[in-house]
Amino acid sequence: MSIDPARLGPMANAIRALSMDAVQAANSGHPGMPMGMADVATVLYSRFLKFDPARPDWSDRDRFVLSAGHGSMLIYSLLHLTGYAQPTMDDIRNFRQLTSPCAGHPENFLLPGVECTTGPLGQGLAMAVGMAMAERHLNATYGDALVDHRTWVIAGDGCLMEGINHEAIGLAGHLGLGRLVVLWDDNRITIDGDTDLSTSEDIPARYRAAGWHTEDCDGHDPADITRAIEAAVADGRPSLVACRTVIGKGAPNKQGSHNVHGSPLGAEEIAATREALGWTAAPFEIPADVLADWRALGAKGAAASAAWDARAAADAQGAELARRMSGDLPAGDGGVAEYIAKLSADKLKVATRKSSEMALEVLTASIPDLVGGSADLTGSNNTKTKSTTPVGKDSYGGRYVYYGIREFGMAAAMNGMALHGGIVPYGGTFLVFSDYCRNAIRLSALQHARVVYVMTHDSIGLGEDGPTHQPVEHVMSLRMIPNVLVFRPADAVETAEAWALAIRETSRPSVLALSRQNLPAVRADGAFKTAKGGYRLKAADAARKVVLVATGSEVELALDVAKALEAEGIGSDVVSMPCAELFVEQDAGYRADVLPVDALKVSIEAGVTLGWERFVGSDGLTIGIDSFGASAPAEVLFKHFGFTVEAIVPKIKAKLGI
Amino acid sequence: MSIDPARLGPMANAIRALSMDAVQAANSGHPGMPMGMADVATVLYSRFLKFDPARPDWSDRDRFVLSAGHGSMLIYSLLHLTGYAQPTMDDIRNFRQLTSPCAGHPENFLLPGVECTTGPLGQGLAMAVGMAMAERHLNATYGDALVDHRTWVIAGDGCLMEGINHEAIGLAGHLGLGRLVVLWDDNRITIDGDTDLSTSEDIPARYRAAGWHTEDCDGHDPADITRAIEAAVADGRPSLVACRTVIGKGAPNKQGSHNVHGSPLGAEEIAATREALGWTAAPFEIPADVLADWRALGAKGAAASAAWDARAAADAQGAELARRMSGDLPAGDGGVAEYIAKLSADKLKVATRKSSEMALEVLTASIPDLVGGSADLTGSNNTKTKSTTPVGKDSYGGRYVYYGIREFGMAAAMNGMALHGGIVPYGGTFLVFSDYCRNAIRLSALQHARVVYVMTHDSIGLGEDGPTHQPVEHVMSLRMIPNVLVFRPADAVETAEAWALAIRETSRPSVLALSRQNLPAVRADGAFKTAKGGYRLKAADAARKVVLVATGSEVELALDVAKALEAEGIGSDVVSMPCAELFVEQDAGYRADVLPVDALKVSIEAGVTLGWERFVGSDGLTIGIDSFGASAPAEVLFKHFGFTVEAIVPKIKAKLGI
Repeated sequence: MSIDPARLGPMANAIRALSMDAVQAANSGHPGMPMGMADVATVLYSRFLKFDPARPDWSDRDRFVLSAGHGSMLIYSLLHLTGYAQPTMDDIRNFRQLTSPCAGHPENFLLPGVECTTGPLGQGLAMAVGMAMAERHLNATYGDALVDHRTWVIAGDGCLMEGINHEAIGLAGHLGLGRLVVLWDDNRITIDGDTDLSTSEDIPARYRAAGWHTEDCDGHDPADITRAIEAAVADGRPSLVACRTVIGKGAPNKQGSHNVHGSPLGAEEIAATREALGWTAAPFEIPADVLADWRALGAKGAAASAAWDARAAADAQGAELARRMSGDLPAGDGGVAEYIAKLSADKLKVATRKSSEMALEVLTASIPDLVGGSADLTGSNNTKTKSTTPVGKDSYGGRYVYYGIREFGMAAAMNGMALHGGIVPYGGTFLVFSDYCRNAIRLSALQHARVVYVMTHDSIGLGEDGPTHQPVEHVMSLRMIPNVLVFRPADAVETAEAWALAIRETSRPSVLALSRQNLPAVRADGAFKTAKGGYRLKAADAARKVVLVATGSEVELALDVAKALEAEGIGSDVVSMPCAELFVEQDAGYRADVLPVDALKVSIEAGVTLGWERFVGSDGLTIGIDSFGASAPAEVLFKHFGFTVEAIVPKIKAKLGI
Repeated sequence: MSIDPARLGPMANAIRALSMDAVQAANSGHPGMPMGMADVATVLYSRFLKFDPARPDWSDRDRFVLSAGHGSMLIYSLLHLTGYAQPTMDDIRNFRQLTSPCAGHPENFLLPGVECTTGPLGQGLAMAVGMAMAERHLNATYGDALVDHRTWVIAGDGCLMEGINHEAIGLAGHLGLGRLVVLWDDNRITIDGDTDLSTSEDIPARYRAAGWHTEDCDGHDPADITRAIEAAVADGRPSLVACRTVIGKGAPNKQGSHNVHGSPLGAEEIAATREALGWTAAPFEIPADVLADWRALGAKGAAASAAWDARAAADAQGAELARRMSGDLPAGDGGVAEYIAKLSADKLKVATRKSSEMALEVLTASIPDLVGGSADLTGSNNTKTKSTTPVGKDSYGGRYVYYGIREFGMAAAMNGMALHGGIVPYGGTFLVFSDYCRNAIRLSALQHARVVYVMTHDSIGLGEDGPTHQPVEHVMSLRMIPNVLVFRPADAVETAEAWALAIRETSRPSVLALSRQNLPAVRADGAFKTAKGGYRLKAADAARKVVLVATGSEVELALDVAKALEAEGIGSDVVSMPCAELFVEQDAGYRADVLPVDALKVSIEAGVTLGWERFVGSDGLTIGIDSFGASAPAEVLFKHFGFTVEAIVPKIKAKLGI
């Protein structure tokens, strides 16, 4: 690097000035972190980070994750100063306003160069683990010439104190992700006050216990920061660099205190800071020489990215890597149609977790992008296929991750892999433990990440393990998260269709809620009806009085109920609703045809009833379970909780007044 | 202890036999852990644990938490063998059946002696941290004569690998909970296979980094187990004892493998195990001498509990401790009525997070049982009051816990404190981060634990922090968890009423969803209307055509909408619905009066609309937000997302056909 070390100080001060001025203008935000970590970030960007501001989507760029997302002005400053098209200075001036891509926390969908959405503490670092996994996996497949980059994280005490940090660093240490470097903003301050109010941990010792290399440095001394990062890069293990910093560094009267964390400095302190830093430029103005230094630094990435282009063009695998990074799946349908045709003939009675495995056998054989795993429930989630051999420290080319008992870490790593690109991740746990990773599912949705959650044991139908393991509210409450598709397929055909739909969804995650228990085939055609979310599975024989709407394991029951009703001359449709979100997206005519106004609509789902009124109306009937489950064999429980023909038919007749 | 060490082996084998036979009879369950930890448990119960089977509710008993809850046959065996009234041998014979209290996982509400419900991994140990906190807190208040017990945990690799473990041990280490001992079943096996498939961590080193003392022992050598536990007890820090065990110990062909974790051994292996152990008794029969040893051991607790009774009777504070342990609050209303009367006069415009603090100032001053805290958002959640001084390693008598950035650990610790008894815990975080502790909220509900969650920043009304921090689906999805009260109060009066109701609920948790932004007083009376969950706040002036149903910050808007409608001659009721669960519990006549069939019902809540159809009907109107939020000032967001009189009135008129 050619930048004079003496010029790093003013470059860092540009970050400090932009951060304090933008927070002041917005009258909200977090100046403390960007000001405290300005020196570290300047060293990182000037000496280590591989990036080309002209090409934020260059696949071999280093990934930089601001895990401490509240310090968003740090990354907005860096992107602007190094010459990315966005954010403009006007964007920064409008920090935290509706019209600006400079949101309160960095949002990957608003701003190229922001690799992932951060703010929910701990998840940025955990997503970075996924990015580093993706890099090593693609490197193993496409070689050093095409894939050879690092993943960098800036994290604060909050990110390190959250439980997910344990899961994330355990996974990274186990997989030996040496290209991952975490720069810890060791400022000894949290929102409530000094860190010693709530923690007495020796953090580097914990990282070492997890197989990490650790360094520390003076976070305001560029030479020392450089030394520590060089040592981190040289070590084969993932590295934690403890950067001892002063929060709000530069603000003479407020630095070093929790008061500078999350509030504007105020006009007086900003003036004092300008004075202390010798920063004479007006707000949102950068002195020409400082900007020139930053832009020169940004410009040097062009040569590296052009050289990579040349290598990619010459490489036999360049086009395939490009396809994968684009998010497109291989041409064709991955063998799904043929497989469904066979299923339609075979009419197997299998658990949907098993038919998920069967679908995955087909898809993973034809789509190399699929990388699976489970949070230590491989044999229960049925997530492993013949094509997906284990990923390990010595086998990054594998496609199956033994995530361990780390649901949240798994989900965040999958988000990281999906956002890195080139991979379509899927991973399993029990549906009830979607609670453990719920905010990561939310972040999949918010970030438009294609992640497939394989959530098995989806109701009281799991039986004896009892209420702690029986989802009741989960299916419906996952439907409430915006931009998520929740599939609860009824049989092997619907399961195959759900898989095909899930992996085609390039900008939203899917949850597959799958049964432990065997379910008979209810569909004999390959008409891909799951694509409409809900459809008429059986039309009434007698004059239609009832429409039964069911999902998953209760579709079989709905068919039996319909049969009993028809035997009494009560015409009954059965609607299978494997994906309520896709059904709602159909046109009004289709929806009204499937759920007509002139029939009693009855929902049957082994979960909470709240929410089903949307589909059956206030004069409909909702059959469900609004309490916790119990420990007993599945068939005993279904009877106990009223999921039988004998219990349901009288309720319907009473409602009909028959 | 008088038991001959040579007799410990047969006593442990009784656990092994019961466990393998019960799992075999149920044809499901987990024999591996109880068989592997039988020796450790036998040493613990025979030499260390303070308990009296005749009095499972003795307040000064040691707490034993089987964090690895899947090994439930271990605790069922121990309770039966030591002479608790339940489970009977028939209960054990009916393991995992609907009629038996021996559920798949241990349930505190089914079986006295089970201190908490376990199975969701990691939470048992984290609840034990809360129990140990409760013990020290009550000890500081009531002294050694009345409160002087230990908390013991058996945990497996799953409990230690989960993220919550990091939060729990960090808190325990920081608070120096030396009376907490964790016995780690170090069997090097997880469900997927050997632990080295997914982890390379040095677990004891991590515990030491968190301020714990660690020991290890041969988990099948009673003398070595005794030595290690004695060292743990002697040390002032919380202790981890790594018990090196063989999973399924005793089953000659299956022990030491993951195949013995979660399936019946099978008749053949059971016969081989009987042979190997020299266990000749029939299934569910315990040789008289072995049972006599166990019962003798159980009987010795009577003297200790009688001695404690004598001390309690002689102690001036004995009655007050008994009151607290009973779950009853102090006589009177804690000053709530007087406080509400003042509020009704003052008509303050404050955020409900602020009025929550004001209510807490009153309640914490009069009710010593309340112990508060926050996951590092004290100044934002407004959870600290003058009466609640900090809890620390040198100030256990404090009543405010700086939980650190540990939402899940906080929630589980609160469950542990509530289940220990003597404490009514409350703790705060941002509502959006209820996702981080959601399964602990679920466990509060399942366990009938009185825990109050103070969840502030409850909608897009938090403004600039943006979509990662803005709850959208959270209020409704928390309403879906059975046995939880979700309060979203509209003003200071409703907030005070919600607090009063929450702490009176002895067998269910409450979530208070509170605003960041100021809200005007909408109620001028002290009629305690929140108790009915929903009520008519304003009756229509003109002939009623519309009923607006709103919660929290949207009640103010509903009043404004009603005013605009009335100005056009459209009579409009306004219903405030601070707690939908309590409203649903009212009789049909009341509900029909509040939500009449002959009016257009319109819900207004700044959250997802799915679910509101239950209250407004399929011909109603739901005003909400079904996408993620955005980063901007609150008032800009409310306008952007259609929460204005100008946006809502035309929708209502269109629906009315006016």
